[in-house]
Amino acid sequence: MKKIYGIGTGPGDPELLTLKAVRIMKEVDVIFAPNNKGKNMALDTAAEFIEGKEIVFLDFPMGKVTEEIYIQNAKIMEENVGEGKAGAFLTIGDPTYYSTFINMMEFFSDDVHLEIISGIPSFVGAAGRSNSPLAFTGEEFSVIDRIPLENPKADSLAILKAFKLEEDELDRLERFGFEYKYIQRASLPEEIILEDKSEILKERDYISLILARRKK
Amino acid sequence: MKKIYGIGTGPGDPELLTLKAVRIMKEVDVIFAPNNKGKNMALDTAAEFIEGKEIVFLDFPMGKVTEEIYIQNAKIMEENVGEGKAGAFLTIGDPTYYSTFINMMEFFSDDVHLEIISGIPSFVGAAGRSNSPLAFTGEEFSVIDRIPLENPKADSLAILKAFKLEEDELDRLERFGFEYKYIQRASLPEEIILEDKSEILKERDYISLILARRKK
Repeated sequence: MKKIYGIGTGPGDPELLTLKAVRIMKEVDVIFAPNNKGKNMALDTAAEFIEGKEIVFLDFPMGKVTEEIYIQNAKIMEENVGEGKAGAFLTIGDPTYYSTFINMMEFFSDDVHLEIISGIPSFVGAAGRSNSPLAFTGEEFSVIDRIPLENPKADSLAILKAFKLEEDELDRLERFGFEYKYIQRASLPEEIILEDKSEILKERDYISLILARRKK
Repeated sequence: MKKIYGIGTGPGDPELLTLKAVRIMKEVDVIFAPNNKGKNMALDTAAEFIEGKEIVFLDFPMGKVTEEIYIQNAKIMEENVGEGKAGAFLTIGDPTYYSTFINMMEFFSDDVHLEIISGIPSFVGAAGRSNSPLAFTGEEFSVIDRIPLENPKADSLAILKAFKLEEDELDRLERFGFEYKYIQRASLPEEIILEDKSEILKERDYISLILARRKK
């Protein structure tokens, strides 16, 4: 049996790794990470704990990834983990939403035992850093990667991938009755929190999100 | 200046504490926790790291808590943290949703610096333990504490406080086109994962939730 872990490395501050993530990263024989032109935020976060480990980079094209690419990379991972050994795929935030890992899970063979090690989600880290409640009792909060066209039912929204945001989308969010904050690189030294629309539109960093709350 | 931290202790496994939560718990002078008849899951999770610390229990009645109770407990916390010292309020999961901490935040005086230390949310821990994707690209997932009366827009739901669930609510969830799992005490040795409705209704443990996903 081989073992492959999907480890969430959290929003960016290495101190927001869990004790379990740190232990497993030290125990495994090989570390996997998507190849983002030689840069990788999950690897940066984990750097201190994976020193000297074998690192295998996996290629995923930007934008829509085909099933074939997931199958191919799952196969590369399996081949790089020896019998009775273990490997870990690192992903920022948590592996269960908008991650490459959940797209690959179904393509591993039965010889592989899969295990997810939870990480602090980006939106939870951003809510904490900006003292923004996500939900009070009885409320609903939704996580989305795009501002919807119709007024959502949720009291509170975490809108990921804020780098794609257009001005008319933020206008729409205001029309729906939400106030919002833009949080960039939450928990990192270069963290920025903005509430002014024109300033937000100037930034739109790749590692950023919007937390919105319906005005009462 | 006094400092008060709201620390998320995660779903239950002490290994799912973050390095930061562990450091801060060791550094603070006093630990605060809600008084649940002498039992407290957040304290149990943190036990190893708060040995010998002063612990102050705060009384919150079950059910709806009045503003007065939050004000009173915020005052007790302030009084128990010395000038230039720090205290930490522990909460299971993460402090930014459905927690006592976010209800108290507005009632501290300006002499107090508040800081949230994120924890692994219960629903993220449960998703990880049960290999359940929360959202693929383009999808929405919602966190709620009650099954809604109308069909929600989300592709995926985390329904907290599953101990309150009635059979007709699970029926409604099925009618809306969702399949679901019940996860009890995710990450703890006594963890249970169930998919059968009658078995779920027999359990309805206090520390449990439902993860639901719309059938394609």
